[in-house]
Parts: sequence; structure tokens; C-alpha cells
Amino acid sequence: MKVSELGEFGLIDLLAKIVSSSQDNKIEAWRQLIIGMGSDDAAAWHGDTSIQLATVDSLIQDVHFSLGTTSWNELGWKALAANLSDIAAMGGVPRYALVSLALPDHTEVDDVTALYQGMIELAQQFDVAIVGGDTSSAPVVTITITILGDARGQDKQILTRSAAEPSEKVAVTGYLGTAAAGWEMLTRQLQFDPEATACLKGAFLHPYPRIAEGQLLVEQGVKTAIDISDGLIADLNHICKASKVSARIEVERVPILPIVKANFGDRAQELALSGGEDYELLFTGSDEVMDKVKTAVSCPVTVIGEITTDKPERITIVDGRGNPVKLSKAGWEHFAKR
Amino acid sequence: MKVSELGEFGLIDLLAKIVSSSQDNKIEAWRQLIIGMGSDDAAAWHGDTSIQLATVDSLIQDVHFSLGTTSWNELGWKALAANLSDIAAMGGVPRYALVSLALPDHTEVDDVTALYQGMIELAQQFDVAIVGGDTSSAPVVTITITILGDARGQDKQILTRSAAEPSEKVAVTGYLGTAAAGWEMLTRQLQFDPEATACLKGAFLHPYPRIAEGQLLVEQGVKTAIDISDGLIADLNHICKASKVSARIEVERVPILPIVKANFGDRAQELALSGGEDYELLFTGSDEVMDKVKTAVSCPVTVIGEITTDKPERITIVDGRGNPVKLSKAGWEHFAKR
Repeated sequence: MKVSELGEFGLIDLLAKIVSSSQDNKIEAWRQLIIGMGSDDAAAWHGDTSIQLATVDSLIQDVHFSLGTTSWNELGWKALAANLSDIAAMGGVPRYALVSLALPDHTEVDDVTALYQGMIELAQQFDVAIVGGDTSSAPVVTITITILGDARGQDKQILTRSAAEPSEKVAVTGYLGTAAAGWEMLTRQLQFDPEATACLKGAFLHPYPRIAEGQLLVEQGVKTAIDISDGLIADLNHICKASKVSARIEVERVPILPIVKANFGDRAQELALSGGEDYELLFTGSDEVMDKVKTAVSCPVTVIGEITTDKPERITIVDGRGNPVKLSKAGWEHFAKR
Repeated sequence: MKVSELGEFGLIDLLAKIVSSSQDNKIEAWRQLIIGMGSDDAAAWHGDTSIQLATVDSLIQDVHFSLGTTSWNELGWKALAANLSDIAAMGGVPRYALVSLALPDHTEVDDVTALYQGMIELAQQFDVAIVGGDTSSAPVVTITITILGDARGQDKQILTRSAAEPSEKVAVTGYLGTAAAGWEMLTRQLQFDPEATACLKGAFLHPYPRIAEGQLLVEQGVKTAIDISDGLIADLNHICKASKVSARIEVERVPILPIVKANFGDRAQELALSGGEDYELLFTGSDEVMDKVKTAVSCPVTVIGEITTDKPERITIVDGRGNPVKLSKAGWEHFAKR
């Protein structure tokens, strides 16, 4: 069987099973482990005085990005943002970044420094120190970033994918589909007015990871979160699978910027449900917790549905009258035939 | 200027300078930092109760390895070994590994599981837990491994590249050039007897990182070490540059396995001086420290030269009569024209 037949998530599940069968609790590292491979946005283990978090992610030229639509500076920012977002989804504090860079021999040194400048600009905003990395030659540009962080709140709590409970509400920060709209605008060379162009381009190329918001979610009693990198439905599916629950989403509640609706019409909803790379947080909590969160965080927070007990685990999308809505595309998955 | 004109080490130096100019000691992560980007085998910082170590490295198909000469299982072992070796060179204890895997869509799932089995076999030998990773599609196989470890010895000392002092001796563990001989044998399809074939193949595809030896070096008072991944001369050059010293190597003292000498004749010396991927430790210390090290570690330890004060920093290679020896190739460097 080829990896394209198994798909990205199937492959990660398989590899996680193989690794987990090698787990040996006589070994300190395994004993301290809280969250291992394939089960959340980051790995987590007990350090001496705090919970340690670590995540790694690769961006590959012409798979994750195109140098035709992304400048090197934007690429640096976005690569780091995507990784910081995984720490945000755990409610953690990012501390250190390591960067492994694979580059074609003909790459301009100025482009590589622009890439680093983009990373540094974002790192400075979140007090992250870039402390290591390597470079090697390769046929295509590949940027692999590892982020190390920790959970240092009073209770050293972290957000996981696996704590969602029936009757909890499902909510998101910010607006969805904006990054996907930006991607469509850039790749299809759509012409919009300057305000829309700047907004959509910014969402796609200059995302802000929800670091502060993730930590505030923990403080307000949220237990379950994920960042929306693959798309709302795909990422909610990760929560449902990990928590062994189902979810019902009211499609008309999903927050979409007017600028996206105005320029993409009927397609806006699809972008919001299935478009990835918004790097907003998707989380669950009781009504009471949701009220506290709305007061605590400064960005928009929208309740879009609830966790249910339907079996098997699945996501139901309904319109304003409760009628099921069909989706043409569930989200982003590597190796999957498109 | 293109990265191929600047070379790997020039590029890393440049990027490290850019990053270090962004350093801000008002930020806790920067304040705790001991060793940042580009200056050693791993990054190091003060954790709450120990020194934390982190290193990342990528192996790229047809740059670092060929699937024609390396099985997937061997590839998994070697990718992890190369990274663990960086922790060994710091005298640290490896704890956790994160793996980012980029694969062509047509990759067989069985091959990916074999890769993971190879990693797991080695991880188990050194009590390392594989705790995270991602997979994505890519034109060529790229394996990026991050290792997190710590220095937990009584004095929480680490080995660096920058502490070598004039008149210290220079020594290596094990034998050099064996891995390069294995690489030549496999790529040039040379035919040797079964014992030589197994030995050379093992050195190239199944290296053992010197984890225990690195920790013993720290305990015996060694301050300066590096692992030999680029080649003896190239890696000694890293020490000289970081420590602002020079070194003189007596070429006839460089330890080479008889099996390499027998099969490669005059070329054996070049393989030992310039061939990479032996993953032995190269270190410096006083005569007294060297004596203690020889007693403490179970592998061969050979003094091959000494640290000098020659200016500018450079490496002199002399034969048994003290006459300079010329080198045709200094070691492995990415982007460098070959």
C-alpha cells in the first residue's frame, strides 16, 4: 500500500501505534510523557517544575507554499506562525525555536536572510528565541521548525484535543475562511479592491498565532482546543476522534468576514468550513466557561455548535432550520488524492 | 550571491549573526540561553533544574543518502544516530525525539514503518522516547529529527566547541574513515571479503552515537568536544574557530582500522582525515585528563595531536618526521562546489 492510499492521518495513526508499542515505562522519558506522537498539536511531558511542550512541522515548496505568491519574508513569518499556533492550541508559552532549512544551491543569500528576518519579526512579538538550526542543499525549499515551550500557569494545565464532553459548546476565535480566500485570490489572480486585497493577503501570508488567547482559554477553564490549520471540519473531526464524541455545527453561525462574503458569495461558507491555515483556535466548554472566555479575550469569540453523543463519532452540519448541509470537501490532508 | 557561493558554514554564520543581533536580554528565553544558533552541536539553555539541550538535523534523499545503498530500516537508524551524536558531543543525555517526515506520494507504507522500526531500535538502546512528528508529501524523502536532552551530571557541565586551550592534547574515540570507506564500497560497488563488507557497511549505515562516552568525557574533566560528522579536519576546524586556537595533527597517529588500510591502501588516510559520518567524538584535554579518559571509557581513545597558538587559526597536518602533509579535500560542506 502506498502512503497516498492510506492518507496523512492514517499514516500518522499507524506510526503512532508502532511507536507507542515500543513505549517502556521503565524509562524515565516515557514515564514523564503526557501526550505522545500523533495525538495532539504538540507533545507534552512533565519537566522538573513545569509541563514541557514540543512541536515540529515542515513547510515544503510547491506543497505548502509557492514562491510565486509568497515572498521569502512572508514565508519566514508564516512558517514560524504555523508552529507557534500549535503551542497556542496547547495553551502554552513558546520559548525556543530550532530551524532546519533545506535549500536549492541556486538560492539567493538575500532571500534566505529575508526568510530569517520574517521569522525574527514574529519571534520578537512572542518573546521566542531562535537558538538552533541547520542548512543543507535540497531540490526544493523545505523549512522545518521545532518549537519548545511550556505550561507555566498556576495549575500547569494544558489544552488537549481529548477532553471534549457532550453538551459542551463549540466555539472559535476570530473569523474563518479568510486565509483560504487569500490563497484563492493569490493563486487565481483575482482582482479585488485594495482593502479586501490587503486583508485577504494578510490573513493568508501573515497569520497571528493565538498565543495569548490560548493561555487565557486555560485560565478560564477551557480543557479542549485545537488550532484550525487543516480546516474547521477537519480539525473539529480531530477533536471528536480524540474525545470520542460527535459535534453539531450550525453553519450560519460560523463567523466569516463581510469582505469574504462580499467577494466570494456562496463559496465563502465552503472556505470557512474547509479552508485551512486560519490558525484560529477551535475549543469547547460549558456555557459558563464560554461567557468567561468572551470577557477575557480581546478577539471575537463565536459559539458555532455543540458537542453531542451521536455514534459513531461524526460531525453534523445544519442550516438555520436544523436541516443537514452537505460538504464537498472536508479539509486538507497530505497524500490524499485531490 | 547564491548559497552555493557562500557555502554551508558561511551561510550558518551569517544567519547566526542576524539572529543574534535580534537577541534581547529582557526576554527570559534569551537570558537563559547558554549556546545559541550556529556555534555548537546543540543549543543549550538553563532549564529550571538542569541544562537543556536541543538539536535538529535533516537528511535529504540523494543529498545525504541514496535509497539505492540504504534500506529504509538503516535510514531510520542512521537519521536518529546522526542526531543523537550531537547530544553525545555535548556530553548530554538524550530524552525525547520529534520526527518530521516528508515523503513522495508513491512511498510504500511498509517502507515508512521499516524506517520507524530502525529509529525505534536505536531509540530503545538509549532510552529515548519518540514523542512527536508530522508527515507531509514532498518530491524527495526528507527526515528531520529534533532531539531534546539535558545535562544532569553532578556539575551540570556540558562539552562545547569553544573551550580548547593551547598545549591541550587532541584525541578521538574509535577509528576514523570507516564510514567513508563503507560509503565508497557501496556507491562504487567494490567487492571485499564478507568480514570487511559487513564491517564497512555497518560503520556507514549503522553508526553508534557515543552517548555514554560523551557523558564520561564530562565526568573526567573534558571541556571541549565535537562529533565527527563532516570529517576530522572539518570538525577540528570548527573547534579551532570556536576556541580561537590552532591545532597540529600527526597524521600517522590517526586511528584507522586495518580492514580499511588493507582495502583502501593509500586512500585510507584521506578517508580518515576528510571522510565524514564516523560519529566518533573529537575532544581536547590535558595529558592528565587524557589518561583518566582512557581508563574510564571502554572504546579506544587515541591522542592524535595537540592544540597550538599558531595565528591565524589553522590546522597543520604533519607526518612522523614533522613534515607538513597536504590534503586534497577538507571535509563535507553543503552548497560547496565539488
